[in-house]
Amino acid sequence: MEKFKKYVSVKDEDHFYHQGAVELLIFNFLLILTILTIWLFKNHRFRFLHETGGAMLYGLVMGLIIRYVTKSPDVESGTVYECEKLKSGPSTLLINITNQVYEYQYKREISHHNVNGHQGNAMLQKMTFDPSIFFNILLPPIIFHAGYSLKKRHFFRNLGSILTYAFLGTAISCIVIGLIMYGFVKAMVHIGQLKQWEFHFTDCLFFGSLMSATDPVTVLAIFHELNVDTDLYTLLFGESVLNDAVAIVLTHSISIYSPKENPNAFDAAAFFQSVGNFLGIFAGSFAMGSSYAVVTHLTKFTKLCEFPMLETGLFFLLSWSAFLSAEAAGLTGIVAVLFCGVTQAHYTYNNLSPDSKMRTKQLFEFMNFLAENVIFCYMGLALFTFQNHIFNPLFIFGALVAVFVARAANIYPLSFLLNLGRKQKIPGNFQHMMMFSGLRGAIAFALAIRDTNSQPQQMMFSTALLMVFFTVWVFGGGTTPMLTWLQIRVGVDPDEDLKAKAASQSASDLDKNTTKAESAWLFRIWYGFDHKYLKPLLTHTGPPLTSTLPEWCNPIARLLTSPTAYGDQLKDGDTVYIINNDELTENYDSSAHIPVPAQDSTGSIQATGKEDIQEGDLGLGGYKLQLQHTADQPQKNSLA
Amino acid sequence: MEKFKKYVSVKDEDHFYHQGAVELLIFNFLLILTILTIWLFKNHRFRFLHETGGAMLYGLVMGLIIRYVTKSPDVESGTVYECEKLKSGPSTLLINITNQVYEYQYKREISHHNVNGHQGNAMLQKMTFDPSIFFNILLPPIIFHAGYSLKKRHFFRNLGSILTYAFLGTAISCIVIGLIMYGFVKAMVHIGQLKQWEFHFTDCLFFGSLMSATDPVTVLAIFHELNVDTDLYTLLFGESVLNDAVAIVLTHSISIYSPKENPNAFDAAAFFQSVGNFLGIFAGSFAMGSSYAVVTHLTKFTKLCEFPMLETGLFFLLSWSAFLSAEAAGLTGIVAVLFCGVTQAHYTYNNLSPDSKMRTKQLFEFMNFLAENVIFCYMGLALFTFQNHIFNPLFIFGALVAVFVARAANIYPLSFLLNLGRKQKIPGNFQHMMMFSGLRGAIAFALAIRDTNSQPQQMMFSTALLMVFFTVWVFGGGTTPMLTWLQIRVGVDPDEDLKAKAASQSASDLDKNTTKAESAWLFRIWYGFDHKYLKPLLTHTGPPLTSTLPEWCNPIARLLTSPTAYGDQLKDGDTVYIINNDELTENYDSSAHIPVPAQDSTGSIQATGKEDIQEGDLGLGGYKLQLQHTADQPQKNSLA
Repeated sequence: MEKFKKYVSVKDEDHFYHQGAVELLIFNFLLILTILTIWLFKNHRFRFLHETGGAMLYGLVMGLIIRYVTKSPDVESGTVYECEKLKSGPSTLLINITNQVYEYQYKREISHHNVNGHQGNAMLQKMTFDPSIFFNILLPPIIFHAGYSLKKRHFFRNLGSILTYAFLGTAISCIVIGLIMYGFVKAMVHIGQLKQWEFHFTDCLFFGSLMSATDPVTVLAIFHELNVDTDLYTLLFGESVLNDAVAIVLTHSISIYSPKENPNAFDAAAFFQSVGNFLGIFAGSFAMGSSYAVVTHLTKFTKLCEFPMLETGLFFLLSWSAFLSAEAAGLTGIVAVLFCGVTQAHYTYNNLSPDSKMRTKQLFEFMNFLAENVIFCYMGLALFTFQNHIFNPLFIFGALVAVFVARAANIYPLSFLLNLGRKQKIPGNFQHMMMFSGLRGAIAFALAIRDTNSQPQQMMFSTALLMVFFTVWVFGGGTTPMLTWLQIRVGVDPDEDLKAKAASQSASDLDKNTTKAESAWLFRIWYGFDHKYLKPLLTHTGPPLTSTLPEWCNPIARLLTSPTAYGDQLKDGDTVYIINNDELTENYDSSAHIPVPAQDSTGSIQATGKEDIQEGDLGLGGYKLQLQHTADQPQKNSLA
Repeated sequence: MEKFKKYVSVKDEDHFYHQGAVELLIFNFLLILTILTIWLFKNHRFRFLHETGGAMLYGLVMGLIIRYVTKSPDVESGTVYECEKLKSGPSTLLINITNQVYEYQYKREISHHNVNGHQGNAMLQKMTFDPSIFFNILLPPIIFHAGYSLKKRHFFRNLGSILTYAFLGTAISCIVIGLIMYGFVKAMVHIGQLKQWEFHFTDCLFFGSLMSATDPVTVLAIFHELNVDTDLYTLLFGESVLNDAVAIVLTHSISIYSPKENPNAFDAAAFFQSVGNFLGIFAGSFAMGSSYAVVTHLTKFTKLCEFPMLETGLFFLLSWSAFLSAEAAGLTGIVAVLFCGVTQAHYTYNNLSPDSKMRTKQLFEFMNFLAENVIFCYMGLALFTFQNHIFNPLFIFGALVAVFVARAANIYPLSFLLNLGRKQKIPGNFQHMMMFSGLRGAIAFALAIRDTNSQPQQMMFSTALLMVFFTVWVFGGGTTPMLTWLQIRVGVDPDEDLKAKAASQSASDLDKNTTKAESAWLFRIWYGFDHKYLKPLLTHTGPPLTSTLPEWCNPIARLLTSPTAYGDQLKDGDTVYIINNDELTENYDSSAHIPVPAQDSTGSIQATGKEDIQEGDLGLGGYKLQLQHTADQPQKNSLA
């Protein structure tokens, strides 16, 4: 009997393994379908349904099948058992059932209203995977990739505008959605649709903050494919990446905001605590991400580049650790990993061996691709596999209106204000396109699914999911027609574009310093510091620290400077040549990520490093000298 | 109050996310440490502790810390609760505790003797991750990579010997270990160490089968680094890869073998059922893996190679699906993914674009590297985090003896028998080295951890874990001294080696057919079939199907043949030239994975495809003709 039991148990376990395999297989199958669809679409230049929309559609169909075709749940499901002896819920519960002990693992606290017959359907349960997998494993590669592949040159040219949209715009959007939703909720209470539970203003603000995270994936994929105007691309990309971070921290701060007495009254202390939280968490996450990146930079002192596999591995693990450490410390990992990515691309990338550069780029691209499609498939699945949806037509309609109005209240007034200060205005059709491109995606979904225990949260989750479907399918699909309709030029080579703009600017305005008024003084100071001290410290490029640091720091400077940097001592004769050399940008190959020698150089100094030229474009007159001196440094490295 | 509860719940959830992040962070930290150690070792050419041993050591220390430093478990842990109303264990249990419903997830059936105070330590529990993650996620990339990177040329030269060691040798090892352990168990019963539970002969055989899986990782890494003699490398590699598959299926078959009456008596029906199971599962898994590979091959009809990312994604997902499908169908995924890898490398690799070739190779290499180190870290962790170890000194000593004797009983007699038939004998020092290299690793561990509910299983798991530690540290560390001591030559270039051997053979023996007696007639037939029908069907290489299939098949043949293959119609004039061309192997670049044109060809036909030349080496005189005709096909593809 003992023997028999053992083998039964072995078979039980086997059954469990197989089920794990079945769920993964379902995802694999969905992804394979998605890939084939993408290929089909790309092959036929079909742009009305984007791949992410396709992935969601497949997920939807699969969710439908799983829900209505898999076997009915156990008989016991939906029954609540009593246990008088227990005082609280332990993390592991041992239960004796007919003389056999079973081990149960704590999953969650569940409200009475959530108890229903689907609880026992193991298949449904397994397909709705743990939100922690979502947050800890699927999101980091997407955000890191966004930071790592940021086109810094264009990004910094538009930094002021991007920050305005991302910070001020997201705050506006959050408040506008919160206010509109509060109005709708009040109306619902009035007509009697909402009486069994409370819906506070903070809940509305919470909804506003999570719905304010716009998704870069769908629109930018189309923009990238069509080579849409680079400034528009950069504005949208920068906004949506930073705005994710802002929305996440905002959501967190609002969920912490808990006025002590009346939840509807304004509690100044709690409010300022939330604001303080927001700033603290944002700054902390930023610091965490950057410091991990700095740790990675120290690879310049190791000879790790002889082993590209180890280098890639270390790079990958440290970047992921930035995310995990921030989460473990109670900060937001998304912000940390985003800035880690930006910093890695800025410094560490230069230290990597050519092989590792290629490897990391392809690896992150691949992981981003997979994670993205898994998330969109999963969103499709969630519509049918999530067991406690509350669809309220009025609330959904309200959300639709609120999202539109909030997007308009973000883009148009801010664009107007920005255009007052910008030399190169943001034209009307760009503003309309930005308005149209405010899709909601993975982040909104992830924030909504994070906690779905109370009824308001369930209703917000269901609504957020529908908003994602709607915006991805309708706006995502309408991107190409909209571009045509708004007469936004496509097929632009970003580098040609920049050159043309620079040429027209220098023709109209001979004084370099006023031409570059866009790059604020703060950033000029930062770049000076970066170029003089950080770059030489953290990478093999830049002037040697021995020449930039004061005399008395020499011993330390010598220790910290990379030996290869010593080749670049300043020679005065070159100075005049460089300053007169206007054909600078022509020697610059943006598509190659491994520095290549300039193709036909007319002078003795060749510009090859992408990063360096980029800074040159920022018009840091005083530093241009050194920049040119170090421009051929990467080339030397790759030959060594 | 309701409000307050909600925020408490939010914070609870947050706590759970953070914990998920903490565990991942611990693994990341261990991996970073491991990578830095590897780099240090590689830099100082230190070979006494291999990276896998290092990973295990770090895991061990971390396990110690987690076990004794983390907070003590809940008060409730270790208490078994009664529930009279329940008749069986549902997959989800809803429990009402002080008017709040908690949801619990079924984890496992647990024996009374396993109930102990550590059950409630959430940290320990989370670190001992689900074996299904181990099987479904960490193992497939390792096994696939083994198959994908198989050096087929050397593999097929030694195929007979490899199959003998892997199938016959593993069976011998399993039986020998089973018998010796049964003797030890009897002795333990005799001296009174084992009386509270039963330990059957099938349990001993089960232990024998799981301890027969030798691990390729540690030794082969060192061999690869030192460029040890290729034949020895191939023998060990081939054996350990195939023997994993054999051991897994064997373990499964033995666990199914359940004689009806007396568990110690021999039940012929059950025995033959197990044998039938073994053959059925092996064949089924082989078929599953190959058919997935065939599906991937059909990519030759798509123009997917224009999108390397999609191609890589599809390749990755289909290969993983091979594993998951086999598991879901009750076969063994390891066998499926191994043969999927071999087949992919043989056919699909040729269809990939150069970019995808590089990407897939690097991707699988990276995943293999990560998965391998995670597994070894985890093995170290398991020594302290697993909660039901049973260490029995006599059993452990018995296992040590048994493993040695069984390895000897596998290697020496089989080598003697093989040497009777082999033209190129396996020398004594090779045999000693193979004897010494029988390390136990991830597979033995994975098989043992799969079910650890009964006490015999727990004792076997603890013993297997110690055996892994012992063999990896002692034998793994002793590999380099042992190589020196046995005077096995190192620093051999595998291709030079083969050429030299071929040259000496052709000098001593002019008749090609008898020289190549090693390659059995079965494989010659297979290769003929492969070259004439499969290669043209599945790849862009080989003669067009229209010329190899009978006349009446022409319409189908035309449909199935790749358009690029039509360029290679047979020209009679070339025939004589090719047959006389003996300098064939010189034009062959083994290190480049993208076909390159021959460097200085003296004739009009260049040999570039690695695969094709490899077959040429097998001495398939009759097919050499077509082989040469298609050899420059990949080159055309890469130019197109």
